[in-house]
Amino acid sequence: MEDAIQLPEKVVAVAAAEDEEVIEAVVKAVEKRIATFILYGNEEKIKSLLTKRIAGYEVNQFVKIVDAKNEKEAAKFAVQGVNAGIADVLMKGMVSTSVILKEVLNKEYGLRTGSVLSHVAAFQIQGFDRLIFVTDAAMNIAPDLNQKVEIINNAVGLANRLGLSLPKVAVISAVETVNPNMGATVDGAILSQMNVRGQIKNCIVDGPLALDNAISMQAAELKGIKGEVAGNADIIMVPTIEVGNALYKSLVYFAKAKVGAVITGAKAPIVLTSRADSAESKLYSLALAVRSVS
Amino acid sequence: MEDAIQLPEKVVAVAAAEDEEVIEAVVKAVEKRIATFILYGNEEKIKSLLTKRIAGYEVNQFVKIVDAKNEKEAAKFAVQGVNAGIADVLMKGMVSTSVILKEVLNKEYGLRTGSVLSHVAAFQIQGFDRLIFVTDAAMNIAPDLNQKVEIINNAVGLANRLGLSLPKVAVISAVETVNPNMGATVDGAILSQMNVRGQIKNCIVDGPLALDNAISMQAAELKGIKGEVAGNADIIMVPTIEVGNALYKSLVYFAKAKVGAVITGAKAPIVLTSRADSAESKLYSLALAVRSVS
Repeated sequence: MEDAIQLPEKVVAVAAAEDEEVIEAVVKAVEKRIATFILYGNEEKIKSLLTKRIAGYEVNQFVKIVDAKNEKEAAKFAVQGVNAGIADVLMKGMVSTSVILKEVLNKEYGLRTGSVLSHVAAFQIQGFDRLIFVTDAAMNIAPDLNQKVEIINNAVGLANRLGLSLPKVAVISAVETVNPNMGATVDGAILSQMNVRGQIKNCIVDGPLALDNAISMQAAELKGIKGEVAGNADIIMVPTIEVGNALYKSLVYFAKAKVGAVITGAKAPIVLTSRADSAESKLYSLALAVRSVS
Repeated sequence: MEDAIQLPEKVVAVAAAEDEEVIEAVVKAVEKRIATFILYGNEEKIKSLLTKRIAGYEVNQFVKIVDAKNEKEAAKFAVQGVNAGIADVLMKGMVSTSVILKEVLNKEYGLRTGSVLSHVAAFQIQGFDRLIFVTDAAMNIAPDLNQKVEIINNAVGLANRLGLSLPKVAVISAVETVNPNMGATVDGAILSQMNVRGQIKNCIVDGPLALDNAISMQAAELKGIKGEVAGNADIIMVPTIEVGNALYKSLVYFAKAKVGAVITGAKAPIVLTSRADSAESKLYSLALAVRSVS
């Protein structure tokens, strides 16, 4: 958050901004000087919501409005804005995820890079002096080995841009030994060795690890696990969306961690916050996105 | 724990007790009046460890030692003791899990009931006024539908014996809607309907649910999810061991929850603590096992 405030202001394109909670997040981000915004959508509604939220306060220098006749057009314009370099970050407003992702993946004006799109969440957890990244808790259901490589690359790229030059990636499973009956442990071993061979770069990968020996040095030592990742992981790579989702929700609801998240793998970071996210979490996601612009 | 102390003292059979940490847990449990013990294993070593730990204090009334010539024999004797009704709970000492489970599954003198063996962990989490049970985080890798029914039955049986007459079971996945591409959501729907039809009894089952709408009423309401389970789940049933393990470790290492766990589905509760468990957690597992004797 602090870092995002220090940056020259980045521009966020919001697809279908005509929503009270979206405007709330936009206004908070403007107040914190995290970004400026182009709000695509129903101009009249957006203006009315902005006026309501910030009566008498001049925001024109931070917020531009571009009229769009429906959510699909708003998504299209926002994506085109990012593609044209007018904006640095794409943010989902009152448009369904499938509609905005269809525009993101459009072959003519979309934001494809050839990589899979993947979700990266950054957690600030009590008792930890570093951010813990979890990927992929929301986009890829049961990624295969190739997709796992891209998911790691996406998260590592984000961590690199955040200043972690050699993030430590733990490929987690239920156990830290290779069990041929547990695919996640096999993939952990393969991904580690691909990292050793230079096929996955700019990070240190180790797996399989269980979550405890990935993040607790005491747990790692008890199991006699050596290496730079065990006990010190920055990035937790989960085997399936069910693992990621349960870990994400457990961190938020049980451990009361703070979280921001972005979609990586496109030409620009994408913020896909949902109604269930707190206002604070939306702000963290915007900060993370702004900070991770390449 | 309090409940376990109130009970008439149950007997725990420990397989291969010749280990400092095991003896530590035994002595603590005796001191708390949670149980009495029969310690199977190397008599000389066990006596020496007991003497070291409780110098000058007479424990013979709470602890009996039965000599066994190796870990396999210790496991066999302990299992036979439980089978014969001499002990109420089986506890793993310095014997590998595979060796003790082989004895548990022995067709002549083992503890089979026809159900799968499954792991149930009970968590005391800050901010929650009830125990949250998680199953199965350790035994079944990727249970099929039939196995999931048995895993639910095992956990429900345990909750029933702990005084919860109609526990609320949330079958979790990454989302709360049925997605044919996500098997865990499909199973959630099927298991719910099996409960409606009376095929799963003594509980209320609802699924698919995501972890947040299973345990947070606010999250459930935001998604418009009705029913008695959403926001109020007692038992979290996870789709795979990877989900269970990540959730378990997240609760212990991130949320600092207190935990005890037992293996259910055999004739008696089984305590399979490992070196990585804290002394406190071992005691909670013993209390949970003693309290859940049928």
